[in-house]
Amino acid sequence: MQNSKWNRGVAVVGVGLSKFGAFPDKNSRDLFVEAYLDLIGTFKEFDPKRIEAFYLGNFSSDQFEKQAHLAPILSSWVGLSPIPAVRVEDACASSGVALRQAALSIASGEYDVVLVGGVEKMTDLEIAAVTEALATAADMQFEVTAGFTFPGFYAAMATAYMSEYNAQREAFYHVSIKNHNNGALNEKAQFGQTIKSIMESKIERAAQKGRPVPEWQDEIDFLSDPKGNPLIAWPMTLFDCSPVSDGAAVALLVSEEIADQFTDTPIYFIGSGQASDGALPERETLSRIPAATQAAARAYQMAGLSPQDIDLAEVHDCFTIAEIIATEDLGFFERGQGWQAAIQGKTARNGEQPVNTSGGLKSKGHPVGATGIGQLVEIWKQLNGLAGDRQAFGDLRIGLTHNVGGTGQTCVVNIFERRA
Amino acid sequence: MQNSKWNRGVAVVGVGLSKFGAFPDKNSRDLFVEAYLDLIGTFKEFDPKRIEAFYLGNFSSDQFEKQAHLAPILSSWVGLSPIPAVRVEDACASSGVALRQAALSIASGEYDVVLVGGVEKMTDLEIAAVTEALATAADMQFEVTAGFTFPGFYAAMATAYMSEYNAQREAFYHVSIKNHNNGALNEKAQFGQTIKSIMESKIERAAQKGRPVPEWQDEIDFLSDPKGNPLIAWPMTLFDCSPVSDGAAVALLVSEEIADQFTDTPIYFIGSGQASDGALPERETLSRIPAATQAAARAYQMAGLSPQDIDLAEVHDCFTIAEIIATEDLGFFERGQGWQAAIQGKTARNGEQPVNTSGGLKSKGHPVGATGIGQLVEIWKQLNGLAGDRQAFGDLRIGLTHNVGGTGQTCVVNIFERRA
Repeated sequence: MQNSKWNRGVAVVGVGLSKFGAFPDKNSRDLFVEAYLDLIGTFKEFDPKRIEAFYLGNFSSDQFEKQAHLAPILSSWVGLSPIPAVRVEDACASSGVALRQAALSIASGEYDVVLVGGVEKMTDLEIAAVTEALATAADMQFEVTAGFTFPGFYAAMATAYMSEYNAQREAFYHVSIKNHNNGALNEKAQFGQTIKSIMESKIERAAQKGRPVPEWQDEIDFLSDPKGNPLIAWPMTLFDCSPVSDGAAVALLVSEEIADQFTDTPIYFIGSGQASDGALPERETLSRIPAATQAAARAYQMAGLSPQDIDLAEVHDCFTIAEIIATEDLGFFERGQGWQAAIQGKTARNGEQPVNTSGGLKSKGHPVGATGIGQLVEIWKQLNGLAGDRQAFGDLRIGLTHNVGGTGQTCVVNIFERRA
Repeated sequence: MQNSKWNRGVAVVGVGLSKFGAFPDKNSRDLFVEAYLDLIGTFKEFDPKRIEAFYLGNFSSDQFEKQAHLAPILSSWVGLSPIPAVRVEDACASSGVALRQAALSIASGEYDVVLVGGVEKMTDLEIAAVTEALATAADMQFEVTAGFTFPGFYAAMATAYMSEYNAQREAFYHVSIKNHNNGALNEKAQFGQTIKSIMESKIERAAQKGRPVPEWQDEIDFLSDPKGNPLIAWPMTLFDCSPVSDGAAVALLVSEEIADQFTDTPIYFIGSGQASDGALPERETLSRIPAATQAAARAYQMAGLSPQDIDLAEVHDCFTIAEIIATEDLGFFERGQGWQAAIQGKTARNGEQPVNTSGGLKSKGHPVGATGIGQLVEIWKQLNGLAGDRQAFGDLRIGLTHNVGGTGQTCVVNIFERRA
């Protein structure tokens, strides 16, 4: 924290995650309890009375569940009342921003121990209603009135990117394949299958039913075929899009000096930045997200680090193009090089710059308000060598999370360090 | 700030308020701009580039305007991008909580200058839809399923209070009369009429139209007559309820040491507390709001003050019973004495403990997400002697705001001091 202005340091001393997926029998309360119990299970001893405040990232239980004012409801539900409970909303960046607010509240001196969570229960609505609710994260006056919903926005970004850098569509497929490969090793992921296994089971099913058997040679072949992978909004196909998900994630934050009272494996906030932007029509180009670059610049500056110092990152791959742009916005690759890096496997789990070892939003799932803290959960596990079969190689010390809201109206970047 | 844990002090150096009311031609953006321009107009010089972050209190533009992710939209709208923009939601306490978060963010050291605002645009929907949207601020699973909406919740609290303390219904009318008297002197208030003038114009209209002329002797007589003042949910009548409103409020917060660069009339955060609670069925009694008492206790403790030190307060009178309970929760009067104090005029503008000199939610209006910072606007004006015709007497140095969300699931209390 070479250039931190924070009055004191903040550590993450534990994390918890619900299973991500579609759960007709679970609401936000159930999902939150599942994540909270997962957190508590990581401690030998745990006294909830030490928790002094609760921050919740949630996009719109207002629309998804007809329940606003969710923060005190959830904190009361797990017995934490009367501690202050604050909901933070910045669309799909809600819990990344909540995480930053929770950290600032400790840096202020007001609290020593803060619980921060994120939750979204999206699958109760019909898919058209989900798309409509998600569209309210964009600018309803200047973006949505142009006829776009989110797949369209990111398709437009993908088109701009391809045009500007002569990028090949295959790069998007490589992102999808990689993230499914990682997610297949994550027991909490919504999609536990690799693209290869999805392809093979489709071939098998066709054979069983006596239908013409598709002659896909490999995953790229499969993803390039609209029969295997239907188009959503050109050039974004089904396997370029993250799913609609239910899920919750939590983390326990404490002031740096008391971290060792809670765990032997803390990780520390060493950088944090947030930025905002107007609607897409105001931007010079659609091939980048300026708020991401600005948030990252602040986070790097606070940490005294450069992109090359980041051992691994969880980035906001709501669509495959978003991951490629993120790897450039974050400075991992030069502008226009991200798509080639994806094809070359540089962002693979054991590539030179691992990205989304968790499976990312694409495969792990994207319960929007839970995503930011879900990213932290992966960084915590990887830095502490707790990621099991998907553990990335090497001495991992620095991890980064990149969480985007709307069409890039919000971005928050947090950087964490393992010191032990 | 005798017992503050904040790493540094925070000052309010300016405030701005839109007109409150029902404005079919204005959306959240318009209301916010109106408040922001009102703020800017109070400075001789103002450099928006000094603003480093924006916090927004908003209950549910999701439901009222089908627009989530409002914080970056509003900050971009007034040219403040790319600064971080964070929406905070705690139902009707949203902007009181946003105010506290903004202050903590300065106390943390991260920012020196922060804009905080609150906005709600409620009148576009039909009244039944507004009631339904507001109900999502309560617990939809354990409160609303019992058949209640907000007038019913507060009617139940009023019944419990009357039963417990043998209180007379007339006390509620006195709160309403007082707040309309104050609001009639507030050019930003939704209702510019006193109860007396409303009564007189009804009498006059009956006479003009040749209908039987009501024989109301005074305001109490008028309010007691269902022909003048229809019942909503016994014992709450029309004139016991705050209205559905559109409006916005903003404030500029800076770190204490640079306050004099902005204004000669800063006021300082000296106490702040927030607390939460579960749903009504979990509470021992409905005659009080425990989260309010807890938030106030923390705020008093931080300030090193007792209730008797508060020169004036803006409290959350969403219903008249709520003001009476608030004056007890805050310790201004003993339990069971608040109703008599209201009848005795103790909370009048020039009574011994002035409450809601602005007109309160009842008369000024209640655009829910704007209310908390709207309360600060009044405290700023009163402490600085800028409240015009409604200026309270005396050397006012200490003001308090009390902002409640839901049925008391959230309460935030902030205390401010004028030092000059």
